[in-house]
Amino acid sequence: MVSEKITIYGHQASRASRPYWLLREYGLEKGKDFIEVDTGGPVTGYNEVRDSAEFLALNPYRLIPVMTHGEVVLYESQAICQYIAALLGGPLSGQTPAETARINMYGLSSISNFEPNFLPMVFRQGGDEGRARYTANLEPLLSALNSELINRDYLIGESRGRFTVADVMMASVVGQYGRAIKFDFSPWPDVESWVQLTTRRDAFYPPRDMKVKPD
Amino acid sequence: MVSEKITIYGHQASRASRPYWLLREYGLEKGKDFIEVDTGGPVTGYNEVRDSAEFLALNPYRLIPVMTHGEVVLYESQAICQYIAALLGGPLSGQTPAETARINMYGLSSISNFEPNFLPMVFRQGGDEGRARYTANLEPLLSALNSELINRDYLIGESRGRFTVADVMMASVVGQYGRAIKFDFSPWPDVESWVQLTTRRDAFYPPRDMKVKPD
Repeated sequence: MVSEKITIYGHQASRASRPYWLLREYGLEKGKDFIEVDTGGPVTGYNEVRDSAEFLALNPYRLIPVMTHGEVVLYESQAICQYIAALLGGPLSGQTPAETARINMYGLSSISNFEPNFLPMVFRQGGDEGRARYTANLEPLLSALNSELINRDYLIGESRGRFTVADVMMASVVGQYGRAIKFDFSPWPDVESWVQLTTRRDAFYPPRDMKVKPD
Repeated sequence: MVSEKITIYGHQASRASRPYWLLREYGLEKGKDFIEVDTGGPVTGYNEVRDSAEFLALNPYRLIPVMTHGEVVLYESQAICQYIAALLGGPLSGQTPAETARINMYGLSSISNFEPNFLPMVFRQGGDEGRARYTANLEPLLSALNSELINRDYLIGESRGRFTVADVMMASVVGQYGRAIKFDFSPWPDVESWVQLTTRRDAFYPPRDMKVKPD
């Protein structure tokens, strides 16, 4: 399927979960089809992998995930996801230039609109007061996302749509973080069903031998 | 060059400057080759354009820029830039799947690494203390960007590289915001020369009849 093995640096409890999820959607198996380089260990202190000259040559920003595939080196989880989808093709990827652009758009929207409000709640920033503020910020944004999902199962495609890498990217923020903090999606019923549809897929869950927490 | 005219909703003093810059790099002219819909006026209060049902159907998040091109509707400035580059092709666009992915990566890096530190300084958030903190945050990031630009003129391409949409996206953050706040790039000489090379291009500057400030 892939002549050279994709290597992902990063562990499941990081944004590396996004490309890992997508690779599993393609039916690819760790070790057999792609390589996982565990980068567990301290994020702020010295980290054997991230502080190695080899890793910093791949990503001078020191962040995970990083992907290598032959000569291709990428950082930024969404760039990696979209590269994998373009490489492996099929219904998970954009079928037209317009679809590919809309996939990119939803990925960017997940970062610009949703991540800055969901992620601080995952880390309990600002405690209860912070949670109330981030939740208030999210209300108009979730109403917007809900309007994009009315009468649809997925973000991309004709009629009710089909599951694509756009859902992987958006649900890795709204769905994964939302579920982690038990966010109440009930005021946005179309978002709520889409969160269930996307994050209850078999491929969403890392296999038991994948590290979910860093060392 | 383009059978149906591209329409951009947004004014120059917004992230719409990114697709406008790119369109000018392609030699396209406002009115003749593409349409600018001015969305000046209040951002927080009622805005005739942004609060219209027509606009909210294009982008329920109410943000600019928005692009329409035939049946294609896009929001998120970087999705628009990458769509235009894919549509019009040539050296400004990715020539291989790897280049296209690296272009996407640099765009994402400009948002995740640089924008959260440059943009608050443009708006003078936190005053002098804020500026000192954002500048400190930027130091390792600019060192990383500098390492990506050593012996290169541009981010993408063989040898010294060639100007692409990746430079438009990255320089719209680091270069444009940095120049706006008179940021001292001298500790990062390769970033400094790249800022000059990219933001001193003719196409960087909006023509006189383009609104630079919203009404």
